Amino acid sequence: MARQIKYGMVGGHNKAFIGDVHRKALNFDPRAELVAGCFSTREALNRETGETYGLAADRVYPDYETMAKAEAARPDGIDFVVIVTPNATHYPVAKCFLEAGIHVFCEKPLCFTVEQAEDLKRISEAKGLLFGVAHAYTGYTMSKVMKEMIAEGKIGEIVAVNAEYAQDWLLNELDPNSTGQTNIAIWRTDPSQSGIANCIGDIGTHIENYVAYITGRKIRRVLATRDKFGKALELNANMIVEYDNGAHGAYWCSQVAAGHCNGLAVRVYGDKGSLEWVQENPEVVRFTPVNEAPRIINRGTAAVTEKAGAFGRIPSGHPEGLYVAFANLYREYLNAIEAKKAGRDASGFDFPTVDMGLDGVKFVHAVVESADNGSKWVDIR
Amino acid sequence: MARQIKYGMVGGHNKAFIGDVHRKALNFDPRAELVAGCFSTREALNRETGETYGLAADRVYPDYETMAKAEAARPDGIDFVVIVTPNATHYPVAKCFLEAGIHVFCEKPLCFTVEQAEDLKRISEAKGLLFGVAHAYTGYTMSKVMKEMIAEGKIGEIVAVNAEYAQDWLLNELDPNSTGQTNIAIWRTDPSQSGIANCIGDIGTHIENYVAYITGRKIRRVLATRDKFGKALELNANMIVEYDNGAHGAYWCSQVAAGHCNGLAVRVYGDKGSLEWVQENPEVVRFTPVNEAPRIINRGTAAVTEKAGAFGRIPSGHPEGLYVAFANLYREYLNAIEAKKAGRDASGFDFPTVDMGLDGVKFVHAVVESADNGSKWVDIR
Amino acid sequence: MARQIKYGMVGGHNKAFIGDVHRKALNFDPRAELVAGCFSTREALNRETGETYGLAADRVYPDYETMAKAEAARPDGIDFVVIVTPNATHYPVAKCFLEAGIHVFCEKPLCFTVEQAEDLKRISEAKGLLFGVAHAYTGYTMSKVMKEMIAEGKIGEIVAVNAEYAQDWLLNELDPNSTGQTNIAIWRTDPSQSGIANCIGDIGTHIENYVAYITGRKIRRVLATRDKFGKALELNANMIVEYDNGAHGAYWCSQVAAGHCNGLAVRVYGDKGSLEWVQENPEVVRFTPVNEAPRIINRGTAAVTEKAGAFGRIPSGHPEGLYVAFANLYREYLNAIEAKKAGRDASGFDFPTVDMGLDGVKFVHAVVESADNGSKWVDIR
Amino acid sequence: MARQIKYGMVGGHNKAFIGDVHRKALNFDPRAELVAGCFSTREALNRETGETYGLAADRVYPDYETMAKAEAARPDGIDFVVIVTPNATHYPVAKCFLEAGIHVFCEKPLCFTVEQAEDLKRISEAKGLLFGVAHAYTGYTMSKVMKEMIAEGKIGEIVAVNAEYAQDWLLNELDPNSTGQTNIAIWRTDPSQSGIANCIGDIGTHIENYVAYITGRKIRRVLATRDKFGKALELNANMIVEYDNGAHGAYWCSQVAAGHCNGLAVRVYGDKGSLEWVQENPEVVRFTPVNEAPRIINRGTAAVTEKAGAFGRIPSGHPEGLYVAFANLYREYLNAIEAKKAGRDASGFDFPTVDMGLDGVKFVHAVVESADNGSKWVDIR
Repeated sequence: MARQIKYGMVGGHNKAFIGDVHRKALNFDPRAELVAGCFSTREALNRETGETYGLAADRVYPDYETMAKAEAARPDGIDFVVIVTPNATHYPVAKCFLEAGIHVFCEKPLCFTVEQAEDLKRISEAKGLLFGVAHAYTGYTMSKVMKEMIAEGKIGEIVAVNAEYAQDWLLNELDPNSTGQTNIAIWRTDPSQSGIANCIGDIGTHIENYVAYITGRKIRRVLATRDKFGKALELNANMIVEYDNGAHGAYWCSQVAAGHCNGLAVRVYGDKGSLEWVQENPEVVRFTPVNEAPRIINRGTAAVTEKAGAFGRIPSGHPEGLYVAFANLYREYLNAIEAKKAGRDASGFDFPTVDMGLDGVKFVHAVVESADNGSKWVDIR
Repeated sequence: MARQIKYGMVGGHNKAFIGDVHRKALNFDPRAELVAGCFSTREALNRETGETYGLAADRVYPDYETMAKAEAARPDGIDFVVIVTPNATHYPVAKCFLEAGIHVFCEKPLCFTVEQAEDLKRISEAKGLLFGVAHAYTGYTMSKVMKEMIAEGKIGEIVAVNAEYAQDWLLNELDPNSTGQTNIAIWRTDPSQSGIANCIGDIGTHIENYVAYITGRKIRRVLATRDKFGKALELNANMIVEYDNGAHGAYWCSQVAAGHCNGLAVRVYGDKGSLEWVQENPEVVRFTPVNEAPRIINRGTAAVTEKAGAFGRIPSGHPEGLYVAFANLYREYLNAIEAKKAGRDASGFDFPTVDMGLDGVKFVHAVVESADNGSKWVDIR
Repeated sequence: MARQIKYGMVGGHNKAFIGDVHRKALNFDPRAELVAGCFSTREALNRETGETYGLAADRVYPDYETMAKAEAARPDGIDFVVIVTPNATHYPVAKCFLEAGIHVFCEKPLCFTVEQAEDLKRISEAKGLLFGVAHAYTGYTMSKVMKEMIAEGKIGEIVAVNAEYAQDWLLNELDPNSTGQTNIAIWRTDPSQSGIANCIGDIGTHIENYVAYITGRKIRRVLATRDKFGKALELNANMIVEYDNGAHGAYWCSQVAAGHCNGLAVRVYGDKGSLEWVQENPEVVRFTPVNEAPRIINRGTAAVTEKAGAFGRIPSGHPEGLYVAFANLYREYLNAIEAKKAGRDASGFDFPTVDMGLDGVKFVHAVVESADNGSKWVDIR
Repeated sequence: MARQIKYGMVGGHNKAFIGDVHRKALNFDPRAELVAGCFSTREALNRETGETYGLAADRVYPDYETMAKAEAARPDGIDFVVIVTPNATHYPVAKCFLEAGIHVFCEKPLCFTVEQAEDLKRISEAKGLLFGVAHAYTGYTMSKVMKEMIAEGKIGEIVAVNAEYAQDWLLNELDPNSTGQTNIAIWRTDPSQSGIANCIGDIGTHIENYVAYITGRKIRRVLATRDKFGKALELNANMIVEYDNGAHGAYWCSQVAAGHCNGLAVRVYGDKGSLEWVQENPEVVRFTPVNEAPRIINRGTAAVTEKAGAFGRIPSGHPEGLYVAFANLYREYLNAIEAKKAGRDASGFDFPTVDMGLDGVKFVHAVVESADNGSKWVDIR
């Protein structure tokens, strides 16, 4: 039973950040084992990372194409690949592994164009392969609790949403003389590396994905402004969205909002009550039933919904943190892998899929189109 | 020195709410004395209110026109009038007293149309009369502190604003079977009594006024949505505003947001830092200088700016509350009255004027025009 | 009906702080009128203060004995006196007015010794005079709501209390070289002016009074430490109290706790739930029913208890502030005065009385006795 | 380099809670590998747990004595053992492994008597073995930041501490008719299983340990009350402690405080400033420098101290959670193990040791002695 699901990783060398989060999150599950990788194009770093995790030398590959081909050919080849490379490479890497017949779990953003996203969706469906996308915030137990509460009608029909993702780490870029974050900022605001958008893609999509996840509402159309402050891509954006039930939501994302770290904050208002949640303190939800006092619901207490609450792992009042959010995505993804391997139905598991990735790409394109065309309404199809 | 400034009141009978707030706020200042009134069109209620405050019977008037005429004729007539009547009557009452040569302090909204507002502005200027408008939130000490901090460059050039005013007291109106607040809701959503807008005028203008007050920025143009949920006027609205420096702000007002009482919350982001303030806990400001930790600045402490901080009356940690906010408006207004009476320059005092009232009316009209025309940009001139 | 209750004031000249709060709070009630005073022993300041409030010159007295005698002799003499003098003089001033047959409302602490307090209680009872003490925090609407909730059994039998009053304004006194607050500190830590205790008397009594008010529990015995840091009187103290039902409470007061302004914070735990309240944001109570999620109850909402909630004056979400807390004390006190004047029963009104003042003095003496005798238990009789 | 440190576990079968936290935390470090265990005295559960983690069947032992003996005899035997058994067995299990020459990492409380604790300390020192104790809260990055700030003099000399650990999960036990948590409560309040104290040992020691860790201050003496509410052991306790510099602290622990989950909250006041931290939101510290505004310091930002801040693993605003706190303990413990294995000096690593465990046992005994003897002062030697 131990480590019966084998996985590989593309990207995520020892000095990178997010690949390590994926590895640690997968370590929460005794079923998964890292056995192959192409962690870096720098040979020494690639090799050292493999050694750190005790990989066989012949399964540390020089490039991802070789890896996909070799692993697909092995009888004990990897069941799935985790893709944690720079954003611009997600599409070719993911496509390569899909074509090799290997399940994929990819960092967000899924890719840059709607065509790419639809391509990945098409291939994975045609081949019957699982495709997970790392929208980790949906993995927090209380995210699932809110989703369940809304589905149960606890706040009724949605009448308004106010959501934001505010950061301040690019604030120094507003100073033309600043050099502090320059390299990062160049990367972030370089269309060849970031696509058509910077913060809309990087964090705006988290808003879109998160609200869609917990409410189940689709966005019908969107209007927006984006503020570039002299850079090639935006550092701040405002959006008004219209949902399929006619209600409106206000979304704001910024990387120049002093005092914010990773300030994803989501408030959903219905005709029977409201829910409020803040990523930086993800253990609690503020729930206000109509005509009653607001309630502070803690993960792990009797006040949480039963099914979603079961995602919690430790007693209430002990913060589970971001690793557990990732681990919850992977628990469901591994359940799906297990089902696939056993020939069972692998649908219905609760992890973000290529469909959500596609929705995110469509959202970014519509927002940019609106912002660059006088903030007119742009439909999302 | 005591009670040397005499005032009258139109509206504000014993069973009304806001007139009493004005009286109590004026009682904070020993210079002012209530000596005349037309508190209600209901004769008994009018008389009883006059008796409660010890007014001479002949200075409790049956209608405001009579009052304006009589007081203007008396050698000891009122110096100014406080207007706390229903919104639809602000314009004729204010005009009547101005034409009688009496200074005015009027509840907000100033009036319904831009023409009315310009008319009041024109008359008051022509006659050299003071015209105060009760945008009370600007009277909180910490509002003045933020204004001073921004003027001093503490947060630099403004790059983004996020502000909202959320309430939930009309939430039951979303239920077609509800009868709870029906009378109020009918009033609120009846164009003949509320003008062209409901919550945009009632609370949206507070956002506009408050941000303008503390930042000094003008709005260049606005786009908006408004949500009526089957009523004649809106109960929820989203706005994106563009300031005269090109930055954008997101404004949201709602009367159907479960869990909010009088949730005016304002956040201003500059390239050197940010400020955050919430009306429901007005004693504190969250100030984040760029690259430093956020600071919680309490009214009354060494951390507040000197000039604005002097508006505080009691030691830090003792909430001053809404009455003091009103009293601060009146302190400045009475200073101006005193200057007028002494023949001194009455400009430069810090209270909301007819100009701010006019800005508010323009804002409401632009927002409604945008919302009713596909959310296009509408200039504010 | 207007201004039918006449009052005088001892102390409270134009440059003093707390007397002005009393005047403004009394101005919230149209029944009360200031007509006499002995505001200062400095003649000019006394006279100017009288002029500010429009007093007749012959009712601005050079000393309180003269005032008490003269007012008692006048047919239109004051109904009650407000005493806002330095703490060391409360006792003789109060006694003087009581003996002249005039009702008293006195700042806290009532006096310095148990004998003094019992004397005042005895005289006021013997003469049938009202004696109010300015424990203003009990006047906040939400204080009354908590009292009502506890009386109704909403949190059951009390099992634990944790309460504190933390300030930091004497922190600089810990530095032997500091001169900043020296004058104040000398006063505060001078036994001739402050009695046997400094912060225990000044703010520790607020804890004792507040918990007693909302819970109705009596303290059976107390143990304590007090920390003088080289001064004559303490700047910090810890207490454990035992209530008459056997439960214990932890009280902490400090004037050297960096980051606190007027941090009275009270938490009461029962076997059916708990209540939490913080003076610096007095509009809300955190109420946790057993096995349920904590609820944030706002003044003015449907969630507050009916009778106590009626003390609120303005809509929820608009902070009433400290003046209203004082005004609520006076509303009840004036109701009692009115009853007295009409020959009706004047008992049962909800304002802090000489009995509470006596309890406070007993508490201070027991705490000091314990702290100065090895922290042993000291009974309160 | 991968998995070069081998460990075993006693306790922690698949249905237990805390053992799993240890395993996941150790999985954060690629150096450690679980290779042996005695997870349960129930044979099937023991075997299944071993299988879950891919252990060789012959290294899943029926009892801990056999395990200690066998592993000590193997050339590839475990480097250390993690002890996560019920509290009453910590002492014999730890002693057994120490005597076999194996390093130990033990859950808290270390043991029940001072003699036991001193025995473990003596043996581990005599044999040169590492002995870690799982006081996990000290592992949070911000705990280390506070420790560093205090050591650097950021808040000066400590003048007061106020700390608490409040829970409500045994609240139903106050109802004599309750059956909900009975089994747990029986265990918790049974002296044979819990020793001489319940909540003082279980959570009171966390307060003692945490304050000692961040401040470096020793407790000179303590006085206390404890409240049993009809049970054999206490559910609530108040303590006043005196530190070696003469300052006092107030500690409160409770399992019957409605509305609290794992409410460890610590505030330390010095003559130059203060620090405040709450376990349920461990990413932030409130730091108030004397005469300045309070600052909210987030993990991962420029405002954190350099050395301690390096314990953080992911960007600011992404909660690391309790697992990372454990993982931080183990990182340092594994560093020490590595040093031991390499023959280097293994002192100076930052993890809780048997000395802290001993301090905890002494604290519990002193508190209980005071509480059971009229709350007199009891010295801690």
